[in-house]
Amino acid sequence: MRPWLCGVERGSVMGVLKPLSSRFTHPAQVVAIGFGLAIATGTFLLTLPIATTDGESAGWVAALFTATSAACVTGLAVVDTASHWSVFGELVIAGLVQAGGLGIMTMATVFTLLISGRLGLRARIVAQAETKALSMSDIRRVIRKVVLFSLLCEVLTAAVLTGRFMIAYDEPFGRAVYLGAFHSVMAFNNAGFALWPDSLVRFVSDAWICLTIAASCIVGGLGFPVVFELARSWRHPRRWSVLTRITVGVSVTLLVLGTLVFLLTEWRNPKTLGALDDSGKLLAAFFTAVMPRSAGFNVLDISEMHPSSWLATDLLMFIGGGSAGTAGGIKVTTIGLLAFVVWAEMRGEGRVHVGHRSLSDTTQRQAVTITALGAALVGVATYVLLALTPHDLDRVMFEVVAAFGTAGLSTGITADVGTAGQLLLVLLMFVGRIGPLTLGSALALNRRTRHYELPEERVIVG
Amino acid sequence: MRPWLCGVERGSVMGVLKPLSSRFTHPAQVVAIGFGLAIATGTFLLTLPIATTDGESAGWVAALFTATSAACVTGLAVVDTASHWSVFGELVIAGLVQAGGLGIMTMATVFTLLISGRLGLRARIVAQAETKALSMSDIRRVIRKVVLFSLLCEVLTAAVLTGRFMIAYDEPFGRAVYLGAFHSVMAFNNAGFALWPDSLVRFVSDAWICLTIAASCIVGGLGFPVVFELARSWRHPRRWSVLTRITVGVSVTLLVLGTLVFLLTEWRNPKTLGALDDSGKLLAAFFTAVMPRSAGFNVLDISEMHPSSWLATDLLMFIGGGSAGTAGGIKVTTIGLLAFVVWAEMRGEGRVHVGHRSLSDTTQRQAVTITALGAALVGVATYVLLALTPHDLDRVMFEVVAAFGTAGLSTGITADVGTAGQLLLVLLMFVGRIGPLTLGSALALNRRTRHYELPEERVIVG
Ligand SMILES: [K+]
Ligand SMILES: [K+]
Repeated sequence: MRPWLCGVERGSVMGVLKPLSSRFTHPAQVVAIGFGLAIATGTFLLTLPIATTDGESAGWVAALFTATSAACVTGLAVVDTASHWSVFGELVIAGLVQAGGLGIMTMATVFTLLISGRLGLRARIVAQAETKALSMSDIRRVIRKVVLFSLLCEVLTAAVLTGRFMIAYDEPFGRAVYLGAFHSVMAFNNAGFALWPDSLVRFVSDAWICLTIAASCIVGGLGFPVVFELARSWRHPRRWSVLTRITVGVSVTLLVLGTLVFLLTEWRNPKTLGALDDSGKLLAAFFTAVMPRSAGFNVLDISEMHPSSWLATDLLMFIGGGSAGTAGGIKVTTIGLLAFVVWAEMRGEGRVHVGHRSLSDTTQRQAVTITALGAALVGVATYVLLALTPHDLDRVMFEVVAAFGTAGLSTGITADVGTAGQLLLVLLMFVGRIGPLTLGSALALNRRTRHYELPEERVIVG
Repeated sequence: MRPWLCGVERGSVMGVLKPLSSRFTHPAQVVAIGFGLAIATGTFLLTLPIATTDGESAGWVAALFTATSAACVTGLAVVDTASHWSVFGELVIAGLVQAGGLGIMTMATVFTLLISGRLGLRARIVAQAETKALSMSDIRRVIRKVVLFSLLCEVLTAAVLTGRFMIAYDEPFGRAVYLGAFHSVMAFNNAGFALWPDSLVRFVSDAWICLTIAASCIVGGLGFPVVFELARSWRHPRRWSVLTRITVGVSVTLLVLGTLVFLLTEWRNPKTLGALDDSGKLLAAFFTAVMPRSAGFNVLDISEMHPSSWLATDLLMFIGGGSAGTAGGIKVTTIGLLAFVVWAEMRGEGRVHVGHRSLSDTTQRQAVTITALGAALVGVATYVLLALTPHDLDRVMFEVVAAFGTAGLSTGITADVGTAGQLLLVLLMFVGRIGPLTLGSALALNRRTRHYELPEERVIVG
């Protein structure tokens, strides 16, 4: 048992913000320090001349931006990935994505299990004794499961993509494996770097590639606790935990609504859906609805989409995907909890119920807190970026939400917001990646008191 | 005692939405029906040829839009008020503003007192007996106070304005009285119609006019319960209720922050603040910060302001002013309560405290509900108006928030969003005006159970 695992028991968020006054390192700090180190290492490697195709250093701003975008599995890019970076640079990017994705997933999964007390019998007994400490072997077991599952998904995705690149696009074996592996890592980790300057626009009508990548993004973005529970009991929705019910319910709702909105808005746009046949329209709209959950690829030219589609995408990117996965945003759990709070209040109910569980007041307040702080951060950053650049609100808000939600989509202004603007986006990606997780878990681990009106369930928020 | 005053005790919001199933008319319905009748009457009068300067009917869309904008004390206009409408038309507009302003104030004040149980000793005794019924004489007394106070404020404002128009602008007495009275009614009721095509831009350096109108807007927009309490005990802030503390605190904060933001963003803009000297800049920035609370006049050309100023204005208009006054928006109380919830959660406190009072869970959820539904409405309406018009997000969001918050400011596209767009704005003004009040009071009157951990105080939300 490590000291920091005791440390999570103590202290408020304010305490977390004063690390020097604490004898214990909070796990939130471990995450921040880990990501900081990964980004610093990545920045150093990407400034090396060997990292670029022309053999000249990329400069520290482009290197820092790219390293942050990769480690935070965002996918925003200030340079074209394939033409600017050498194979070495691309491997650094893929390595950062894999490390960032696995890092956030394992930490978040440990946090989630810590919070919901679902880490097997032994941990649950300990949790009932109110100490909630986990043994290192419990944690090792969980991390092993997460890593194995991730690698399995990535290998499967890479295999399908490689086959498709060989068969349909006549790529030689080595090149097809490289492309398949690179984009598989990007897809499962919800990082949107692509080795074509137009992202995946050339594959807009290729259902094999679109659906494989979309499936990989969705599984990676659901989050491990939910994926594990679905694997165990997908046939028995009544046994699902509140976390799984909300994640699946909100995800399906957003995917359906998103597809409908993009079909509606872009149907006649000759630069986007208008050029495709009906089944092609459906495929492209579905893919476009999956990507803001924060995968970040695109098969439609985003800069040609209607501003109302951008606004819908903003909302989807802000919400993001599931907790404890590779997705960003405030998370579907958070928005789902808020919806239940609003619904209960409209119906005049004294308590907020999800299924046969009652949501604690503090869980409700956590959802409010994460949403409010996220919205405030996006608002302030949009104001600053609007003031710094000549671009209009449409594109600036899209860029800010894409960075905060680590979605990585762009209307095309990323390279064109100046150094100050790019540093602001770097900050947003970092805070957007580790903020909701660390804030959510710090808030959830904050409280000792419980109410016993109905069995309550702690749901991780953010 | 009237049946509908008993009716407020029963039923959830869902019940309110099913009026035919109820034997009692909910006060929320009285408000909606009253506003509907006022708008219908106003629309009829404004379609008369006598209402326009050219003697031709304005057409039903312009008449409906103007009548709704006036009755909902918004101030958005699809035609130039002074040149398009005759004196008869202007009097109809002023009459609708006065009726709409007094109507919402009296109803909201009665609701607030009903909710907080502060309607004098007798009502309080009755309230403690859990019936909360008010006698008609109590209500008549409150309404009389509200009407007298409103008229007093309007007469004072009109007197200062009239004097200033005569002395500094050489207007003849009759014309000065007309201008003074018209703009005084507009200012106190937070409706932004002006009899100059550029609103009040010509008075940008006239501190008499700017400060008088700003003061009138602020007093009208604070809301009666707060104004009455300040009049009674402004020297003893420790005795203030939670409602007054939050309203004053958030209002002052927003006014100061707003002034600073506009100074910062527009300081060097030659089309706005850049043309003024330093004290002129301060005056204009302060006035510009007061107006989104939802007065709707402008001394700076809004279409020339920087998009980042528009975004800041959007936020101020969405929040609006105090509850139970003439201001619109989700109200400063709502946003203040949310801030206390977030702060308590960040500090890891089990209960949310404001001063020595504890906020009930249901009050917190009401604030969440009103903010969430308001944001959702603004989001959907912005999406629809973006799809309907060729304008960009900057201007469209500004227009939608100005309508929802009944703020009445515009970047200049109101006349240019088409009939469908204008009908959408009509709907937004109506819902923005009566929605937060009726939803807030319906939610607050919804609940019977109370918790007694600490003395709780019910704060009206919305
Ligand atoms: K991404
Ligand atoms: K107004």
